[in-house]
Amino acid sequence: MNGAECLLRTLLANGIDLCLMNPGTSEMQFVAALDRVPGMRGVLCLQEGVCSGAADGYARMTGRPAATLLHLGPGLANGLSNFHNARKARSPILNIVGEHSTQHLRYDAPLTADVEAFARPVSGWVRTLAFAGNMGAVAAQAIRAAYGPPGQVASLIIPADHSWSPAGAPGPAVQKPTRAVPSVDRIRTILNEPGVALLLGGSALSEQGLLAASRLGIPVFLNRNSGRIPRGAPWSPAQRVPYFPELAEALLAGIRHMILVEAEAPVSFFGYPNRRSTMAPEDCVFHTLAAQNEDGVAALEALGAGFPAPALPRPAPLKLPADGPLTPDTIGAAIAALLPENAIVSDEMVSSSEPVHLHLERAPAHDLLPVTGGSIGQGLPVAVGAALACPDRKVIALEADGSGLYTPQSLWTMAREHLDVTVVIFANRRYRILDVEMKRTGTTVIGPRADELVDLTRPDIDWRKLGESFGVESVSATSTSEFVDHLRAAMNRKGPFLIEAVLACE
Amino acid sequence: MNGAECLLRTLLANGIDLCLMNPGTSEMQFVAALDRVPGMRGVLCLQEGVCSGAADGYARMTGRPAATLLHLGPGLANGLSNFHNARKARSPILNIVGEHSTQHLRYDAPLTADVEAFARPVSGWVRTLAFAGNMGAVAAQAIRAAYGPPGQVASLIIPADHSWSPAGAPGPAVQKPTRAVPSVDRIRTILNEPGVALLLGGSALSEQGLLAASRLGIPVFLNRNSGRIPRGAPWSPAQRVPYFPELAEALLAGIRHMILVEAEAPVSFFGYPNRRSTMAPEDCVFHTLAAQNEDGVAALEALGAGFPAPALPRPAPLKLPADGPLTPDTIGAAIAALLPENAIVSDEMVSSSEPVHLHLERAPAHDLLPVTGGSIGQGLPVAVGAALACPDRKVIALEADGSGLYTPQSLWTMAREHLDVTVVIFANRRYRILDVEMKRTGTTVIGPRADELVDLTRPDIDWRKLGESFGVESVSATSTSEFVDHLRAAMNRKGPFLIEAVLACE
Repeated sequence: MNGAECLLRTLLANGIDLCLMNPGTSEMQFVAALDRVPGMRGVLCLQEGVCSGAADGYARMTGRPAATLLHLGPGLANGLSNFHNARKARSPILNIVGEHSTQHLRYDAPLTADVEAFARPVSGWVRTLAFAGNMGAVAAQAIRAAYGPPGQVASLIIPADHSWSPAGAPGPAVQKPTRAVPSVDRIRTILNEPGVALLLGGSALSEQGLLAASRLGIPVFLNRNSGRIPRGAPWSPAQRVPYFPELAEALLAGIRHMILVEAEAPVSFFGYPNRRSTMAPEDCVFHTLAAQNEDGVAALEALGAGFPAPALPRPAPLKLPADGPLTPDTIGAAIAALLPENAIVSDEMVSSSEPVHLHLERAPAHDLLPVTGGSIGQGLPVAVGAALACPDRKVIALEADGSGLYTPQSLWTMAREHLDVTVVIFANRRYRILDVEMKRTGTTVIGPRADELVDLTRPDIDWRKLGESFGVESVSATSTSEFVDHLRAAMNRKGPFLIEAVLACE
Repeated sequence: MNGAECLLRTLLANGIDLCLMNPGTSEMQFVAALDRVPGMRGVLCLQEGVCSGAADGYARMTGRPAATLLHLGPGLANGLSNFHNARKARSPILNIVGEHSTQHLRYDAPLTADVEAFARPVSGWVRTLAFAGNMGAVAAQAIRAAYGPPGQVASLIIPADHSWSPAGAPGPAVQKPTRAVPSVDRIRTILNEPGVALLLGGSALSEQGLLAASRLGIPVFLNRNSGRIPRGAPWSPAQRVPYFPELAEALLAGIRHMILVEAEAPVSFFGYPNRRSTMAPEDCVFHTLAAQNEDGVAALEALGAGFPAPALPRPAPLKLPADGPLTPDTIGAAIAALLPENAIVSDEMVSSSEPVHLHLERAPAHDLLPVTGGSIGQGLPVAVGAALACPDRKVIALEADGSGLYTPQSLWTMAREHLDVTVVIFANRRYRILDVEMKRTGTTVIGPRADELVDLTRPDIDWRKLGESFGVESVSATSTSEFVDHLRAAMNRKGPFLIEAVLACE
């Protein structure tokens, strides 16, 4: 058995049966081994950012790592931005990167680069395999490391000769780490203080965690940049901390004690002139119920034991929006009314976001996959990964037209794998959020030359053709009724479908 | 004057008047300053790999740095792969990256990352600005560093508050470094040895350098992965070192003394089982005429002084290919026959490359911009940069359909800036080079599951729609005569145009 086959068997022994790939010469042994070792699903992505973002989406939905297989330093480099998002989502990922064969590394060949240095900023664990005989053991260590807790990117760098050389036996099935359950006694004493609230993040943001939190009868806030958040009517009492610090401060005003559950004290996305970065009141005291590596759900359940379970709000039937100009508000109303139970929503709407979320809060229960690390270009790849993880659930990618252009190659993988993803492009033909942010950083007038760098017209992007170029059936909607018709059709079919929602001018 | 304006004025004082941008919130002051400081051309790219690749193409054609402006660590991450190529091309680039404001950095906001760590593997110079008052001086240092020699990526990281705070005067116009002229005496003694040859790379690969080299009357070889290579009939006696080591070894057999001019001893692109990485004969002795930071052209001229200048081959009129199946050979014949004098050819053809180059060697003189760092996705961005640098020259991007999918967003910038680029997509619907490489690393049979990871069908990519989606007029050709007609039309017009060349099955 050569190294590549040993690696493949170690992955399968650990239940890793999905590999998002953009391989090159140094990874050919791994590709060839797919035909000798059954059980691994190799999914080709046309750009590495799709691989890393899809692995993130998969991990968010399953809690388990998928593997990525990338080509040398530059291939890894293309995947870094979505690995950054995965790091912030605390997603477990086994990131396999090929390296030149050891005898070739001493020469400065074109593709020679410092692969470990590329990997380090996004990885919790980095190692270059030193000899083929270690393949199984080191791969098992990498898998163990990916689980954390919290989950992290484990980057295993494999010189090509260690893939083609004979290796030993596959590595063992590793013991999945368990999260420690923290003592809740010191928190229990705070529950009756005035102005006490919960802030949930990480793995505490499961249905079970939200149920337990709801028993405590105190306000529940959600870290908006968590990897996965159950949303919809049943979970509407819990509130996402707003993006803009003014709104966040208004929501959190009066909070004196904030109990952190796998979450950190809320800070604004960006720093601004003459404004502090923290968003809770300055006299707010923070109490950690569960750290990022601890079991927030168990802690919440321990804390809430004995409290009665409140009735959760039930979704009421929602009305479809009347025809009229197409806006984030009417799109949100349409989505909320047509969303099937238990859908998955990948959210990279950016400036169109808030009106849609107001509607989604009344929709049937669903899983929201938010922006985590703020590196745009995650929405479509995360949808790919979620659809691979949950083939029986409808995935909806709500995507800004600016953000969608960082990794549009995701559409091809949706087509090739026939993934059940409906993509909605919010086409306002502008990096609209930057209009706001430019003013916030002190620019009062946006001149014509600055405007050119925020404007996405001249030429407009034709999303229908873009989707079709990658093999995804695509339509364009310019009115609310058109959008409703297209969305209804999309919800009643399986497979990838793209709707360009051309927003009315504001 | 705030920091952003000071930065802009320092750039302009140093003749840097092009900035390839994908800005975000932290860079808004720089964007706003464009309207207060005339002279800087801000070019928007929809993905950062286009910025870095275009800056590379610009530097290859001008020898001067353009600026890039990228958003925080993740924005930089998206540009790293083409910065890797720029590093190998020894291209001077001033890479400006925004960072969170200093008071915000202590918090782990979503976009917080180790920006310097991302920058280091591709940069010869990295610095985070410590306070706004230093802006002009440090920016001038960065520009100086970018020039090298050899050219390099200088990464200047600027916390947002240093852009919005008052800064001092702009930095000075820096003295452009000169390259030292090495002594040629010790090389002169070798010229009459049997089996002596030249290997040229870097800045020695100019028309002037090739002219000087031709006087010596010894074989001239070219580092195929250099940033820019004059090619076409006048330069056809100089030979590019082949990609595959067997061919390279055959070409270099008999060479006993290789004189290196801004080049390193030739090594193969990849390492393979049971094969050495070096490609010159094992008993070949290497002699450095000029190191990478020295003036290879001056050294060649000093060495050749007194030798007569040989007559250069003149391009003969070339015949257009007869109609028939569309192949790299017929495409190459068509391009060579229709190529205007002094064109620029961005080459990322990968597996289609060699037949085309056989024709290009007989074409009118042109500049070839080859693959340098081997990170695919450079061909289209490099064409963008070359067209921005040389608006009066026709640019032709010869692009493989696999490689073209890493940075297709380049097409939009071609459309927006109305760049005179003709894109030819070699559509063989496959990562064809991997068929070859898989066998070379020891795999004799490519099974059906491996095949899926090399195959680009199911679905086919529709390049005509892809080009049109980004606003570029696009056509598809399936026969040689169709291709000739489209190419002739493209050569007789200005502005971006895409021809999908659907290759006949082999």
